[in-house]
Amino acid sequence: MTDIDAARFLEDMRAFSRIGGRPDGGLDRLAWSPADVEGRRWLAARLRESGLEARTDEALNVFGHHPDSSGPFLLVGSHADSVPRGGRLDGAYGVIAALEVLRSLHESHDPLALRVETVAFADEEGVRFGEGLLGSKALAGDLDISRLRAARDREGVPAPEVLRRAGVDLDRMPEAAGHRDQVAAYLELHIEQGPRMAAAGSRLAVVTGIVGVHRQQVRIAGEQNHAGTTPFRLRRDAGRAAARAIAGLRELVQEIDAEAVANVGVIGFEPGAINVVPGRAAFDLEVRHLDEGVIDHILDAFADRLRAVCEQEGCTAETALRSRIPPARMDAALMRAFEQACRSLDEPVVHLASGAGHDAQVMARHVPSAMLFVPSHRGISHAPEEDTPDEDLVRGVRALLQGVRAALTGR
Amino acid sequence: MTDIDAARFLEDMRAFSRIGGRPDGGLDRLAWSPADVEGRRWLAARLRESGLEARTDEALNVFGHHPDSSGPFLLVGSHADSVPRGGRLDGAYGVIAALEVLRSLHESHDPLALRVETVAFADEEGVRFGEGLLGSKALAGDLDISRLRAARDREGVPAPEVLRRAGVDLDRMPEAAGHRDQVAAYLELHIEQGPRMAAAGSRLAVVTGIVGVHRQQVRIAGEQNHAGTTPFRLRRDAGRAAARAIAGLRELVQEIDAEAVANVGVIGFEPGAINVVPGRAAFDLEVRHLDEGVIDHILDAFADRLRAVCEQEGCTAETALRSRIPPARMDAALMRAFEQACRSLDEPVVHLASGAGHDAQVMARHVPSAMLFVPSHRGISHAPEEDTPDEDLVRGVRALLQGVRAALTGR
Repeated sequence: MTDIDAARFLEDMRAFSRIGGRPDGGLDRLAWSPADVEGRRWLAARLRESGLEARTDEALNVFGHHPDSSGPFLLVGSHADSVPRGGRLDGAYGVIAALEVLRSLHESHDPLALRVETVAFADEEGVRFGEGLLGSKALAGDLDISRLRAARDREGVPAPEVLRRAGVDLDRMPEAAGHRDQVAAYLELHIEQGPRMAAAGSRLAVVTGIVGVHRQQVRIAGEQNHAGTTPFRLRRDAGRAAARAIAGLRELVQEIDAEAVANVGVIGFEPGAINVVPGRAAFDLEVRHLDEGVIDHILDAFADRLRAVCEQEGCTAETALRSRIPPARMDAALMRAFEQACRSLDEPVVHLASGAGHDAQVMARHVPSAMLFVPSHRGISHAPEEDTPDEDLVRGVRALLQGVRAALTGR
Repeated sequence: MTDIDAARFLEDMRAFSRIGGRPDGGLDRLAWSPADVEGRRWLAARLRESGLEARTDEALNVFGHHPDSSGPFLLVGSHADSVPRGGRLDGAYGVIAALEVLRSLHESHDPLALRVETVAFADEEGVRFGEGLLGSKALAGDLDISRLRAARDREGVPAPEVLRRAGVDLDRMPEAAGHRDQVAAYLELHIEQGPRMAAAGSRLAVVTGIVGVHRQQVRIAGEQNHAGTTPFRLRRDAGRAAARAIAGLRELVQEIDAEAVANVGVIGFEPGAINVVPGRAAFDLEVRHLDEGVIDHILDAFADRLRAVCEQEGCTAETALRSRIPPARMDAALMRAFEQACRSLDEPVVHLASGAGHDAQVMARHVPSAMLFVPSHRGISHAPEEDTPDEDLVRGVRALLQGVRAALTGR
């Protein structure tokens, strides 16, 4: 049975990492940057060297497929762009793994090679328009082009210049969706980008879905006072109300669902003087879970808690929605294919919900999709220190090949 | 027995409020500004109109005394400068009240007039060098002139230009201390600048002292993580640790001393992104009390609490002193004089520690000093809405006169 060429895969990982590579081992390959464009050319060249056809669409997504096939395909891949000062594995690993899987099938004259297409999606990280997953959204026909145009025109970011030099025309990007009907399903191999697998000693994990993300701002109004002359009982301290609400957040979330997470990453008091009791406080709350019902339950419970705290503190609170991304469930049959792949490699079947966003969440809205994770060293991602041992990387590529086979043949 | 002229006092209050007055009823009479200089000239003119001698020192402090006397004096007054967008009473009330008291004694040929000197201190609010109480410090010989020079030269604030136009030479300001030996004691009448008297229905309050103020920054270090992929149990959330420490601050302080206050008016999380678990948090803590031992007790208890919280959260904390102002106790004999004044006006004797700073805290380090408060409407100060009913203001001036008499005669 077909196997991958582990040495070649690792050599390609190294070669790909050098394009936009940083002296510290990290990666600066921002979407549509010269390094990103160069990386996509390199990918197309590697596909062609292997006798495969390479095609680049209007978003600069790079596809590879057997010259004798025009689909429909099982699409396999990830994204080729990085965050600023990013790591060499986030996205790139799944792209090179897909290349290695299709190449191996093709070289061994496996007929499955005709049914697989590789993809290197563009701008998953969202560094250009403040919105990510643009390559997969373009393919899926999910681009909100008027919002992107507004972001481009409003923010005066270097995007227009970057896009022009990369040969990308925002107005033509929706044409990438012309290929959507040739995509029957989607598989993605990725690093976990979190510490859970490493903590549990797992080497492979089948993703159950990508969590939904609810983001809101909480604003608390009290009364600004002199901190020396106003006794506690006469204060309406918006900062204290905020601190009390935040201090109890974790317990509140965990009581509702052990898998849910929440975060307060931004906070500020007004007027922001050491000797003034805060009249206003604001913080950003983020809640993530695979089930929107759980997210809403948490938001309701937090709103109750916030109301009670504010009442005790003589304050009032209001919330403003920042954004809401619905969860994406992975396809049960494709998950079973990855579970079978784990078993074929003598690995236990481990399930994990992805806390981070992935192209698979866009694809899952249109076609059956699934993801497989390998562990992240110390859980670190979006940093030059991002790492996973070669052995684990190679195991993931083997599991991807087995998953592709199981998805297409049921064996 | 001598009484004040209430109508004249109120008319002078109105006239003085117009110098630097704002359309909204507030005051912009920043230290050494043209309005402040004009106000000081007006004061000197009012003193001279009443047959008193006016003298302006190197800091632009304005003194008034009987032409036949050269001290030593019971100094009575407050400051004539305001904060930006300030109120008409903070400082000005005590200055005009002192004028009215000395004028009344002088007009009624009371021999006590020979023993009283009025003062309108300069730059109490500290808008020029980031350090307040400069007029009283100049008189008391407490100026840290090298620190002021450094502040002037470092910050490139408009101070040099403002001082030049006002005729104030920073290098000569210490000469104001030449008058110190003529000052035997100090009395100051002021609005409370807080809500406690209004809440208790008190119309006069004898100040027991001016609280010490300890200010420190607290920095908490945890670990920056992805808020989606890092489960709660693997987080070291510096923001959560800060929130927990702040949420329990009030209870901790009140358990130690019911009169103590503390405040957290400034806070920030790093890196400050909605989807990143804060790796660092910093906030400013202020603690005030009349007894330094109580302040230290609170700081120790808070440090213990912070250590325990940080240990639970996998974080570490450190604190950096920002500033420490020692408390100033008022003189017991002069407090008794004010208590007697309250009784002579059929007002109950109420004691209060001042949570805000005053020139009396500088004077108290050198001579017996005392303060009397009248209520602040809704506790508001440092704002155009600063107000106290005329009736309460007039009662305060009468009490000041009685206090001066009791201080000088024991009756």
